[in-house]
Amino acid sequence: MHKKLPTRAENFSEWYNEIIKRAGLAENAAVRGCMTIKPYGFAIWEKMQAILDKAFKATGHENAYFPIFIPKSYLNREAAHVEGFAKECAVVTHYRLKIAEDGQQIVVDPAAKLEEELIVRPTSETIIWNSYKNWIQSYRDLPLLINQWCNVVRWEMRTRLFLRTAEFLWQEGHTAHATKEEAEQEALQMLRVYADFGKDYLAIPFLKGIKTEHERFAGAEQTYTIEALMQDGKALQAGTSHFLGQRFAKAFDVTFTNQAGQLDYVWGTSWGLTTRLIGALIMTHSDDKGLVLPPRLAPIQVIIIPIYRSQEEKEAIQQQVQLIQQQIIAHNISVKLDGRDEHKPGWKFAEYELKGVPIRMAIGPNDLANKTVELTRRDTGEKATVPIDNIVTIVKDMLGDIHDNLYQRACEFREQNTYQVDSYKEFKEAINQKRGFILAHWDGTIETEKQIHAETKATIRCIPLDGNTEPGTCIYSGKPSKQRVVFGQAY
Amino acid sequence: MHKKLPTRAENFSEWYNEIIKRAGLAENAAVRGCMTIKPYGFAIWEKMQAILDKAFKATGHENAYFPIFIPKSYLNREAAHVEGFAKECAVVTHYRLKIAEDGQQIVVDPAAKLEEELIVRPTSETIIWNSYKNWIQSYRDLPLLINQWCNVVRWEMRTRLFLRTAEFLWQEGHTAHATKEEAEQEALQMLRVYADFGKDYLAIPFLKGIKTEHERFAGAEQTYTIEALMQDGKALQAGTSHFLGQRFAKAFDVTFTNQAGQLDYVWGTSWGLTTRLIGALIMTHSDDKGLVLPPRLAPIQVIIIPIYRSQEEKEAIQQQVQLIQQQIIAHNISVKLDGRDEHKPGWKFAEYELKGVPIRMAIGPNDLANKTVELTRRDTGEKATVPIDNIVTIVKDMLGDIHDNLYQRACEFREQNTYQVDSYKEFKEAINQKRGFILAHWDGTIETEKQIHAETKATIRCIPLDGNTEPGTCIYSGKPSKQRVVFGQAY
Repeated sequence: MHKKLPTRAENFSEWYNEIIKRAGLAENAAVRGCMTIKPYGFAIWEKMQAILDKAFKATGHENAYFPIFIPKSYLNREAAHVEGFAKECAVVTHYRLKIAEDGQQIVVDPAAKLEEELIVRPTSETIIWNSYKNWIQSYRDLPLLINQWCNVVRWEMRTRLFLRTAEFLWQEGHTAHATKEEAEQEALQMLRVYADFGKDYLAIPFLKGIKTEHERFAGAEQTYTIEALMQDGKALQAGTSHFLGQRFAKAFDVTFTNQAGQLDYVWGTSWGLTTRLIGALIMTHSDDKGLVLPPRLAPIQVIIIPIYRSQEEKEAIQQQVQLIQQQIIAHNISVKLDGRDEHKPGWKFAEYELKGVPIRMAIGPNDLANKTVELTRRDTGEKATVPIDNIVTIVKDMLGDIHDNLYQRACEFREQNTYQVDSYKEFKEAINQKRGFILAHWDGTIETEKQIHAETKATIRCIPLDGNTEPGTCIYSGKPSKQRVVFGQAY
Repeated sequence: MHKKLPTRAENFSEWYNEIIKRAGLAENAAVRGCMTIKPYGFAIWEKMQAILDKAFKATGHENAYFPIFIPKSYLNREAAHVEGFAKECAVVTHYRLKIAEDGQQIVVDPAAKLEEELIVRPTSETIIWNSYKNWIQSYRDLPLLINQWCNVVRWEMRTRLFLRTAEFLWQEGHTAHATKEEAEQEALQMLRVYADFGKDYLAIPFLKGIKTEHERFAGAEQTYTIEALMQDGKALQAGTSHFLGQRFAKAFDVTFTNQAGQLDYVWGTSWGLTTRLIGALIMTHSDDKGLVLPPRLAPIQVIIIPIYRSQEEKEAIQQQVQLIQQQIIAHNISVKLDGRDEHKPGWKFAEYELKGVPIRMAIGPNDLANKTVELTRRDTGEKATVPIDNIVTIVKDMLGDIHDNLYQRACEFREQNTYQVDSYKEFKEAINQKRGFILAHWDGTIETEKQIHAETKATIRCIPLDGNTEPGTCIYSGKPSKQRVVFGQAY
């Protein structure tokens, strides 16, 4: 039997870990801080990749692949960048092992020490801009719109499956432009691509905004972010898009001849989404019965469970099921039959609830006689007995409804957990008792930002892009504020 | 203007390097031995991935992702495995950098030394079988059919773009089975999948065979291989599939309860294809004008080049071109228009010849008047003026013909360069003067294999699976031989 999950109310963090484990999404690897993404979890990532890759190509980007190793000195070329990444690097110092003198153990061969240490990429700006130097001469070589799907390593001390792991998978876009305006537009365009992906596929409303200087990417002039609110009231940074200005161009001496024949530095952007999105998806939609997957990213969209007592019944049902399956598959809906004899239907019901499959289709002898099936929605638990004549349309519509409902629910949750406060007292009450997104005035200084963080653990998630721009006074310092910013407790 | 390529006859190796450089496929990275795969080269790899991934899924495999780092001690669990890989490993010893005392340089922080060093995966058998231990309990958990697309690192001393680089991209399948027979069948099935991919997409005939014990994968009981013959007469190992026996199961204690209720070790396979295939493709089909791409893997299948003198002519032609493009794209044929004014048609002709685009479509004012276009095949250089009425069918058929012709040509080349010899004298003449695949009798001992290699540089590429099994006497030792094996000089 299935052991009961801890509930969200009991222990949100345990609930999260147990869903990942029991649904077979991922597990901690033998190597500290690293994770193994299991087939069911990886299938979600593959769907995300396929959709995003199409969106990147539709906006003119091409994929490429740059080396995993970065010479140590490269990191040091951009001052803020090295500051941001040096403390959490995996460092390759040797290129050979040898048998120890005992003839048993293997040890690092001291004779195979690298002249310059190599860093396993935490992000690829440095190695990529070092290549761009040779790829760009004239305005005709611009824009250069490149993306890479790969693994990166950041040696995090406290790790959490999908949310923060030493190694993770991501895409990193790195573009080069002739003008500042074009680069800024690119960074904003990719933020929109990310937010649309959130709405249309993850069923998560992302708040678009600008990071404060303090929270900015190490080496960027502006960092745009998409922020989501999890069911425990904590905020999750789901993706970022950076306007790099000419910083990396200057660090790696990447110049071009513009249309006027003058030499200028190239303008840059970078932007990334990671396997963290799987964590966002779990913490946004799932419930105390387990995972709830948004239909467009579900590896299995419809699970068919036959209900039978005899082998004859089973065979008759399976014939019917085959016809249904063929029809559904022809419409690009992924469907699976679980015809295993060793598990009872009730066990299977619980299993696929746990795995978040959007629609369960049960079919028993009565259904067979009546030419019906019983459909159960994972999001609401609603059951309906429907005729099989029109099954494709019914299933399609239901998948669409489930997506819309999940998105609607997430929007409502966010609305209910967004608070506007006008004093530091109110602010502290809100952040301690309710968390959520807190809209408050801030004086724009790093000092105030750090003080508030030290006293409440809250950080400024972003300066919202589409927010109210009415000025006011800072809740902490009483100094003037240009607009409300969004505070939250972050993952 | 385009500088002339070195010819194959002049300098095969220079010709290969120059094609890669000028066609924009890849380049050497700043990190020794690593390569940057540029967008045009990566687009070929993406096509390969999409096709192979589909074939893997059609044979029941799922993708997953395992960590890039392998604890040093894991390598040591399987004796042959460590022997094979310890000498070419990138070793991570530290997890942090710090600012040096001069306040300028960054150095490895000696306080951040790892207790156990981590190896950047050269292949993932060890880390994967360590996971399988927890994933497999009963025969019901088997077979486990998993594949992973990722990067791996082998610290090669002499590197060559695509053929041998310190870091490369690949897929590695790792499967676990309840019986020896099933595992052997799996290893052979994947060899067939690889060979079919060669024939149907790469347009390369692969020779299927078994590696000798000496050439076997470190940790396998049997290594199957696909071998191809390059235009310079050298052999290229294009992919391998291994029957692992119970070796990794024993090394990582992976047992299962079989249907009879007894505990047994699990049987395994692993199999991989790499970015080396791009090298194989270049060296099989390309000519002295540049790259020749097999149509089903070409990022651009049809390049359209408008020929005009005035802006009016250009516009009229472009209208026509748009109609043609729409029709062709609707049939999933990738087509690109090069309408740049800064280059003359002749320059463009040479450019896309260099880039190996299968079909060039030129359209000028006369064509416009006559409702025709001029098509030029990259493989033969043949030109034909054809009516645009039926353009989709003509292009489709031509792409098919080009594929067939490339495959046919490669088969003929291989046939003409395969020699059967019966004495060591003949053998030496053949290998020195003609290279190629040399069919000869061998006594089955490692000693003879090593001697022949030391004296001639030839290695046994494989014991062919579909070969003549007539016995004979070894060309070197005169001892009995069970069947002819295939010798060659290898990349």
